[in-house]
Amino acid sequence: MKSSLSKNAIIGILGGGQLGRMLAISASRLGFKSHIYDPDQTAPGSQVSTFTTAAPYNDINALTNFAKSVDIVTYEFENIPTLALDAIENYVSIFPSRNALYTSQDRLNEKVFLNNVGLKTAPFFNVESIEDCENAITKIGRKSILKTRRFGYDGKGQIRLTDDKNPVEIFAQFKNQPCILEGLINFDLEISVIGARDQYGAVSCYDPGENIHKNGILKTTTVPAKISKKIATDAIILTGKILNALDYVGVMGVELFVEDNGLIVNEIAPRVHNSGHWTQNGCIIDQFEQHVRAITGLPLGDGTRHSNIKMTNLLGDDVLNLERFLTNGKSAIHLYGKQDIKPGRKMGHVNEIYS
Amino acid sequence: MKSSLSKNAIIGILGGGQLGRMLAISASRLGFKSHIYDPDQTAPGSQVSTFTTAAPYNDINALTNFAKSVDIVTYEFENIPTLALDAIENYVSIFPSRNALYTSQDRLNEKVFLNNVGLKTAPFFNVESIEDCENAITKIGRKSILKTRRFGYDGKGQIRLTDDKNPVEIFAQFKNQPCILEGLINFDLEISVIGARDQYGAVSCYDPGENIHKNGILKTTTVPAKISKKIATDAIILTGKILNALDYVGVMGVELFVEDNGLIVNEIAPRVHNSGHWTQNGCIIDQFEQHVRAITGLPLGDGTRHSNIKMTNLLGDDVLNLERFLTNGKSAIHLYGKQDIKPGRKMGHVNEIYS
Repeated sequence: MKSSLSKNAIIGILGGGQLGRMLAISASRLGFKSHIYDPDQTAPGSQVSTFTTAAPYNDINALTNFAKSVDIVTYEFENIPTLALDAIENYVSIFPSRNALYTSQDRLNEKVFLNNVGLKTAPFFNVESIEDCENAITKIGRKSILKTRRFGYDGKGQIRLTDDKNPVEIFAQFKNQPCILEGLINFDLEISVIGARDQYGAVSCYDPGENIHKNGILKTTTVPAKISKKIATDAIILTGKILNALDYVGVMGVELFVEDNGLIVNEIAPRVHNSGHWTQNGCIIDQFEQHVRAITGLPLGDGTRHSNIKMTNLLGDDVLNLERFLTNGKSAIHLYGKQDIKPGRKMGHVNEIYS
Repeated sequence: MKSSLSKNAIIGILGGGQLGRMLAISASRLGFKSHIYDPDQTAPGSQVSTFTTAAPYNDINALTNFAKSVDIVTYEFENIPTLALDAIENYVSIFPSRNALYTSQDRLNEKVFLNNVGLKTAPFFNVESIEDCENAITKIGRKSILKTRRFGYDGKGQIRLTDDKNPVEIFAQFKNQPCILEGLINFDLEISVIGARDQYGAVSCYDPGENIHKNGILKTTTVPAKISKKIATDAIILTGKILNALDYVGVMGVELFVEDNGLIVNEIAPRVHNSGHWTQNGCIIDQFEQHVRAITGLPLGDGTRHSNIKMTNLLGDDVLNLERFLTNGKSAIHLYGKQDIKPGRKMGHVNEIYS
């Protein structure tokens, strides 16, 4: 095996949510052991990992012991404190690299980076004061969204402007955190590409999926997306460009708007991505295994898809109504082992084969 | 969910080898937690289970605590001591039932059962003494195999007779354990059916796979098998007959010889089966999930196959030569996390899609 890690290596994973859980399972499939680091002892990932550390992300002692006990570290979320990364990197490598984290965890950095490599984004302005906010509205107009530069996810940390909303009020809602004002895009549909790059520079992408959101949260991804061959190819080439520009190692999710004039990059996520869950039942090698292959020095799979899949997130109470999926003979149910159901909480997903 | 077990239930699994490991992973996919019981603390299954008990199978205290801590118990091997089963059944149900274990863990019971439900087996005679052995040879002839009635697997516990081999010598090799002498079958090929039956009596079978053994150990299973539609249907009906006759709950592997005159049952295994590993990448619901569904009271999947698969066992050093499978873009590698390579040891398997 052309692996830089031995077959009994331990993969450290920061974050034990559903993504950490599915990464741990894929690591095991390739014979590796896993070590989940998460503040919550009962996190979904801890239920399937070989080892667990339950400690906060600012516990330098715990982080140091964790780093010493694993052969490599990866993560399931991008807002990892710098101190935690420093503590770990004293002992072991982190993939994807900190450069990728730095770029993607701040919407301003991300958009500047994307424009610099020649990719289109929505128009945007940095907003660090009420004055900035007023200026940005003058330039972009009120068809826009104010987003916090950091810590936003699933529609959180963003407000869509309306004609009557006052910039002072709006900016105050985010407690004067640094933001960007982003122009609204009139897109036909949203797609995403799950791309991967290995330690030798090889790139592999899955077919673009078509995403539908509900209340800011991904509801379904359908593959193949209803896009032309040309758009699909463009989306994949563009993803390769991003991966190469970052000298990236691992799996990345790239969300794109499809417009009349081509593709606009919405955002990138330096990790396995909800819109890539369909690969578990549509491909011989899924995004989780692809990520583990990339970071452990194994060659990538080629992303071939054997089936058409519709992935549906099970949000909140959805998880109580699985009868249809359990009995229709073409659905794979993936539940995350979360104890409590909360409205909008991601409890699991279903991959349904269709023809 | 029409499940008799709550979504946070804990599945107890006796045995933490590769089958226990893959059962634990499938249990997690349905949101359940797993508890592996195995004498070896570092067993493959323990690396991915939520809880582990490392204790011998005759430790009644440990077995009792295990039984009290789980919601249901299943197993990955059939030779579980009666004392262990008794200790567990004081607290929690075991699936598949003890009746299935009783029938399948003894070759004599198994063949008598099969004949009683009208199915063909190889001719056989019970051998408990040298005299029995001589009588049996007189009746069946020397084209036969002496097999221990219990504890045989992967070609162990069996000797093929030859013209010069002396019955006294042969029987002594098994230290006078109860045996059967079985007539050799001239079969065209060996197939197996992975069948499942749920708690409501519904039966579901996967397509028959074609098996090739090497030195008594399964080497490959290929699906579809090169058999007629009629033989495939017969094999599935026959499997349903066995499952119903045993009032079985769970997944069973049924090995069959295909002869000119029809099907002969070689043996049955009351558990997930090596020849069913192809389902992991050929079906939306694999044999491990099917087993978990059956024992937890969920409805079965329908066994639909989306791809043609060749499963190859990675025995011993095979695991060091994965380059071809890693890079051909159509192979899923499944490794078991076993520390030491030994000749013939099952280290993992590969499912390869072909068209």
